[in-house]
Amino acid sequence: MNIDMIDAAAGRLNGVALRTPLLSSPFLDEIAGRRVFVKAECLQHTGSFKFRGGWSAVSAMDMAARARGVIAYSSGNHAQGVALAARRHAAPCVILMPSDAPRVKIDNTRALGAEVVLYDRATGDRDAIGAALAEDRGLTLIKPFDEPHVIAGQGTTGLEIAEQAAAEGVHEADVLVCCGGGGLTSGIALALEAKAPGLRARPVEPEGFDDVKRSLASGGIERNNRTSGSLCDAIITPSPGQITFPIMARLCGSGLAVTEDEALAAMAAAFARLHVVLEPGGAVALAAALYHPGEIEGDAVIAVASGGNVDAAVFRTALERFGGA
Amino acid sequence: MNIDMIDAAAGRLNGVALRTPLLSSPFLDEIAGRRVFVKAECLQHTGSFKFRGGWSAVSAMDMAARARGVIAYSSGNHAQGVALAARRHAAPCVILMPSDAPRVKIDNTRALGAEVVLYDRATGDRDAIGAALAEDRGLTLIKPFDEPHVIAGQGTTGLEIAEQAAAEGVHEADVLVCCGGGGLTSGIALALEAKAPGLRARPVEPEGFDDVKRSLASGGIERNNRTSGSLCDAIITPSPGQITFPIMARLCGSGLAVTEDEALAAMAAAFARLHVVLEPGGAVALAAALYHPGEIEGDAVIAVASGGNVDAAVFRTALERFGGA
Repeated sequence: MNIDMIDAAAGRLNGVALRTPLLSSPFLDEIAGRRVFVKAECLQHTGSFKFRGGWSAVSAMDMAARARGVIAYSSGNHAQGVALAARRHAAPCVILMPSDAPRVKIDNTRALGAEVVLYDRATGDRDAIGAALAEDRGLTLIKPFDEPHVIAGQGTTGLEIAEQAAAEGVHEADVLVCCGGGGLTSGIALALEAKAPGLRARPVEPEGFDDVKRSLASGGIERNNRTSGSLCDAIITPSPGQITFPIMARLCGSGLAVTEDEALAAMAAAFARLHVVLEPGGAVALAAALYHPGEIEGDAVIAVASGGNVDAAVFRTALERFGGA
Repeated sequence: MNIDMIDAAAGRLNGVALRTPLLSSPFLDEIAGRRVFVKAECLQHTGSFKFRGGWSAVSAMDMAARARGVIAYSSGNHAQGVALAARRHAAPCVILMPSDAPRVKIDNTRALGAEVVLYDRATGDRDAIGAALAEDRGLTLIKPFDEPHVIAGQGTTGLEIAEQAAAEGVHEADVLVCCGGGGLTSGIALALEAKAPGLRARPVEPEGFDDVKRSLASGGIERNNRTSGSLCDAIITPSPGQITFPIMARLCGSGLAVTEDEALAAMAAAFARLHVVLEPGGAVALAAALYHPGEIEGDAVIAVASGGNVDAAVFRTALERFGGA
């Protein structure tokens, strides 16, 4: 896993993935007490950065394997990213999803041409079910984060951040990344190491699900006590990956954790000031930038807004509670 | 008023305005029955394309005039665009706003450093009040649309559309533009004439306020019976301009008009499928693309999403009525 794989993924994604803008607002700068830049991956195809990793993995397969098809398991965004990437490659696609995933994500994944298989998150073993399905049908499993081609795809976000930050005159800053299993965070960290060594990736998680923060602090892989019951469902995973954790341990600054209310308030701020739609899990990095200024260094901060697939009811709640009139 | 002025404005805006992305979603393509591309000017600085025109005008002034300051009258988006452009040039800025403008727009304009003077839209003569203020203080009036440097700035949106459409392989299409006085529409029309002659600008307005559509049909400047009482306040003007109308009459296809409900439904669709926030007046072009397919030609359509400055209460209404769960 190295920068050459990320550069190669960028080549395969060129003209396919959206080069998402780096947004800013003087109003957010005022809240944070420093310049704030938001990498708006919520605008990416399928509404999250996951399309990058999905495309990177599917486009790297040999043609025979692609013709048999792919399988992925995901709480939703990885599913959509893989489904669209597979459809555009004319590859069959099976998605294994928890039965409590947001309705909009299940519907969207089916509409993107994938066959959705549901399982019970509390009682089913996702890995075992996925492996059996893959073997039965000759499908290639595309893991959500602990897979080099996926990490390479997510890392292309970091290549763009390096260029866009330099264009803004920002050469030293914390880059806050919404973090589940660490695919996006480790990919960005590798890209920044090579292209913008003054920028430092730092994972951000919801309080109570901060396995990566605790793992970075202890030096070993820590687990969450539970993996459901958070509004930030998109970034809840049991623990960091075997591939992603060593990368993060080597390159990342310490982790941050925010409350659900801070994530909802960041969604309302992004609505009013940037005019983008964030899901709770996609808003935790911006929440840390806005509401944890004392834990951040430097006169500028970059926050990755990783996804925007949110039920209308949850978004209305964020606006009712934090959106003013 | 010609393409050279737009190219010159693009030079002044280079590195200052955001090059906004051209967004798409297979879900929107399905609704419209053709490929749909959305030029997301809601992501522009200050939340609308108006920053382009404001910056273009302020940056074109001589230094002595700029030091005396500028004045603008606006229902809100032009005000914010001019205010930020003036602040970044260290120029004093007075904004004359109707007292019934959305609260968020008044607050934002003040927060951007402008002095806001309110007047009654029903009884006050905006032009007379503005002219008197300008003379008293030596301010330069920056008109919202009927002003060559402003049209040139808005026209830079069209330069980007020409390039971005070509990159998507789209060489013939209707370009639907949210239209008030016609500054954005005429600027885009001029840019497309020079750079992408297969693309044709068409103005879109709210039903009941379709002065431009009727003017294009009759060949002379028509007026609206009223200029208040629409959710689409950002694009309500009495009539097309003396400069903008001849350009639109020469270059534009026929106008379209959509209902307020269609604008709200387009806001909900943009929320769910593109993850951007649109205001009602900024959503009318997308509404026409999605819900008036029979009035559009070609297998692709481009809609300009011109602004995203919307009160949270109005946005919640759009989601409650058209956003599903």
